[in-house]
Amino acid sequence: MAMKDVITGARNEDGIATVLALLKQVFGDRFQTGQSFLEQHAHTTTYLPAQLPDGVVFVETTEDVQTVVRSCAEHKVPVIAFGTGSSLEGQVNASHGGISLDFSRMNKVLEVNAEDLDCTVQPGVTREDLNVYLRDTGLFFPIDPGANASLGGMAATRASGTNAVRYGTMKDNVLSLTVVTADGEEIRTARRARKTSAGYDLTRLFVGSEGTLGIITSITLKLQGIPAMISGGVCAFPTLKAACDAVIMTIQMGIPVARIELLDETQMKAVNAYSNLSYAEKPTLFVEFHGTEETVAIQAEQFGEIAAEFDADAFQYTTNAEERTKLWKARHNAYWAGRALAPELNGLSTDVCVPISRLAECVEATQADIRETGLLAPIVGHAGDGNFHVLVLMNDKDPAEVAKAEKFLERLNTRALEMDGTCTGEHGIGQGKMGFLRQELGHAVDIMGQVKRALDPDNIFNPGKIFRI
Amino acid sequence: MAMKDVITGARNEDGIATVLALLKQVFGDRFQTGQSFLEQHAHTTTYLPAQLPDGVVFVETTEDVQTVVRSCAEHKVPVIAFGTGSSLEGQVNASHGGISLDFSRMNKVLEVNAEDLDCTVQPGVTREDLNVYLRDTGLFFPIDPGANASLGGMAATRASGTNAVRYGTMKDNVLSLTVVTADGEEIRTARRARKTSAGYDLTRLFVGSEGTLGIITSITLKLQGIPAMISGGVCAFPTLKAACDAVIMTIQMGIPVARIELLDETQMKAVNAYSNLSYAEKPTLFVEFHGTEETVAIQAEQFGEIAAEFDADAFQYTTNAEERTKLWKARHNAYWAGRALAPELNGLSTDVCVPISRLAECVEATQADIRETGLLAPIVGHAGDGNFHVLVLMNDKDPAEVAKAEKFLERLNTRALEMDGTCTGEHGIGQGKMGFLRQELGHAVDIMGQVKRALDPDNIFNPGKIFRI
Repeated sequence: MAMKDVITGARNEDGIATVLALLKQVFGDRFQTGQSFLEQHAHTTTYLPAQLPDGVVFVETTEDVQTVVRSCAEHKVPVIAFGTGSSLEGQVNASHGGISLDFSRMNKVLEVNAEDLDCTVQPGVTREDLNVYLRDTGLFFPIDPGANASLGGMAATRASGTNAVRYGTMKDNVLSLTVVTADGEEIRTARRARKTSAGYDLTRLFVGSEGTLGIITSITLKLQGIPAMISGGVCAFPTLKAACDAVIMTIQMGIPVARIELLDETQMKAVNAYSNLSYAEKPTLFVEFHGTEETVAIQAEQFGEIAAEFDADAFQYTTNAEERTKLWKARHNAYWAGRALAPELNGLSTDVCVPISRLAECVEATQADIRETGLLAPIVGHAGDGNFHVLVLMNDKDPAEVAKAEKFLERLNTRALEMDGTCTGEHGIGQGKMGFLRQELGHAVDIMGQVKRALDPDNIFNPGKIFRI
Repeated sequence: MAMKDVITGARNEDGIATVLALLKQVFGDRFQTGQSFLEQHAHTTTYLPAQLPDGVVFVETTEDVQTVVRSCAEHKVPVIAFGTGSSLEGQVNASHGGISLDFSRMNKVLEVNAEDLDCTVQPGVTREDLNVYLRDTGLFFPIDPGANASLGGMAATRASGTNAVRYGTMKDNVLSLTVVTADGEEIRTARRARKTSAGYDLTRLFVGSEGTLGIITSITLKLQGIPAMISGGVCAFPTLKAACDAVIMTIQMGIPVARIELLDETQMKAVNAYSNLSYAEKPTLFVEFHGTEETVAIQAEQFGEIAAEFDADAFQYTTNAEERTKLWKARHNAYWAGRALAPELNGLSTDVCVPISRLAECVEATQADIRETGLLAPIVGHAGDGNFHVLVLMNDKDPAEVAKAEKFLERLNTRALEMDGTCTGEHGIGQGKMGFLRQELGHAVDIMGQVKRALDPDNIFNPGKIFRI
């Protein structure tokens, strides 16, 4: 279970004291140990308890990162990369104490190669900043996890979001990384070619490793041309099954939908209340198409036919940007609308992912569980990927409520695993899902452990995450 | 240089003798040591010298694989997976002797999940067999490296081919693997969900590892809906630069071209001679679009406009399957047409990949090098990826010719690396490219070595490939 799994590790007090003194000398004001700095760099976005680092270094160059890693390696002190702190499973908690590397000052776009549709950024660049920077080039970076996360953090947690169904996840959109490894050296995992079969895929090994194998110092990303036309639409279905069947047929027919989001009845109620709207309070799909005027019209028409086949209400659809924003408002506000159902409570945001043929069954069983358990918990899904989020509203100061939520999480994850799904489609393991990883992958977790020990023999990189070492 | 790099490793004669006796006992007739069996399971498709294994086991089950791996692990004897033997860089050579695992009898499609667009196959299933099997489902597996390779081999070498520009490479199309690791246990690298952020991406670690980290025993693959309409076209350009610029603009505009292949002047001459055709002997693009009747028409029209902008000859284009086959004949026969330029010589097929902005420059410099060196060497490129092949025709019995070809290879790879490209876009490192991997990735190769030693401490899995251990 999530909370019980959080490790509070043995602290290497002597090593930490030595490193604190060293870093103070080297970094001066760029090294901070004040309580407010430490609190800002521990985990704050979920119900998991915060575990504070001992000091924060505001790194500005790769050499800074190397200096910190070398000091920490020499004295066996943990080092934890920090982007914007928007991860959801305790990824930036300092379970064994140690040094937080704050990347907010390594926020430069280093290079844009418009002809090659790629760019190279420092880890602290956020996805919104990158897209503002790119605006004049006609290109954009598509991955959108919701939060304005840093690209280093997004690479480290293998982030995705609403348009993964069209553009893939970070795994598919990182061409290359530079990484400082445990020996303090910087490696480059791949060249800038669009494809390669040159040796082990170190790029994909570091993407999703949650800072446990090395520290990412730059990221080369694939970019996309801004679509000439974007159309958006909304469509309510009589049942969750009907909505999911429409998704399956859309994918099977190869309609290149850019986003296809599922909001359940509770979430639609929340949205109506929050934004004073009057959507049907039924399972609803929000769709978006990217292309030319002609192709998005064709795609929307095809989707409308599929929706009608599954007894949907009329498919509302527009290419007008303002109307599209209005239509999609319910989806964009989903998180805050959900929280507003019970403003006095905290939100526990979790995710699982199943083969899409099992999505309706998994969501329906989860809804029944929510009802039976007496929870308030709206559901939003990236339906094209079989990935969905449950926002459990609870008082995290009440141990009984936390225990109830954790039991629910346990059942949710077991349910997803029984359907050949995964305990996390996009949030990562961090601390919150450690208990489920073994259930999901068995002995493969030991192979991950072998990789970890080989690349980080002293367990300095973000210890206490993903698995027990 | 390629040939000089081929390792002939120290043989563990005692261990090999023990394992041969053991396997004979366990496998009877499914274990072979006859010369013709050994020759068939060594490298035969390139100029690299063959290095024969000591025995061949025709495995039929995962348990068979485990039996062999456990025996080989206990006695520290190499074990080399063998699919169809169509790899090009010496991947199946037994440089230290040992046991070849022949997967031709593990050729079952285990499961097709049409609603989820995925299937699970044994490693010996070939891509053509899979597509025949799938025909009635309306689905297909898109990756097409040319040869009718086994899917296990394609996963192990991170294969791609003509339609990677649309569908990606094996890295993008493998959902999950089962793998027998050095301890003889079988792991599953991921569940069947379309995306996951559960721990390290072991799937991508094994894809492209060329049999050096474990033995793949099943592969879960993404499938695609068979397009309602396929259109194909051919278009000759005044210069290589013009053809490449047309490719860049096509990609930048987001036209979802399914294949976009570049044949240079020499290759077009070869094709005309081989098939008695009368194509213009100019740099030529072969394109293919997948979609509906309406969308392929739109895409072809858009591409035609781009081609015209770069002074192409008239774009010939058809949706008729028979005419399309005829139009594309030149591309399909490219390899044999190239070989027919000098039937008495052998063909050395090599590949590099560069950012597409550098493709024209890299191909033109390579053509100049070919002329200056006095080689006969047609060029075919997967232009949308910046990946191209050079087929060097030479007498591989003549050391002077081999030396000349190897010098050329060295310059070709250095040229690609200087353009931030890779020494191999799709053939892999094997033995042939070992010398270039360090030049490409430097210290990152040591990190690969750490992974290798962690997962295969006794170096039993396909030793002498990718890097020196």
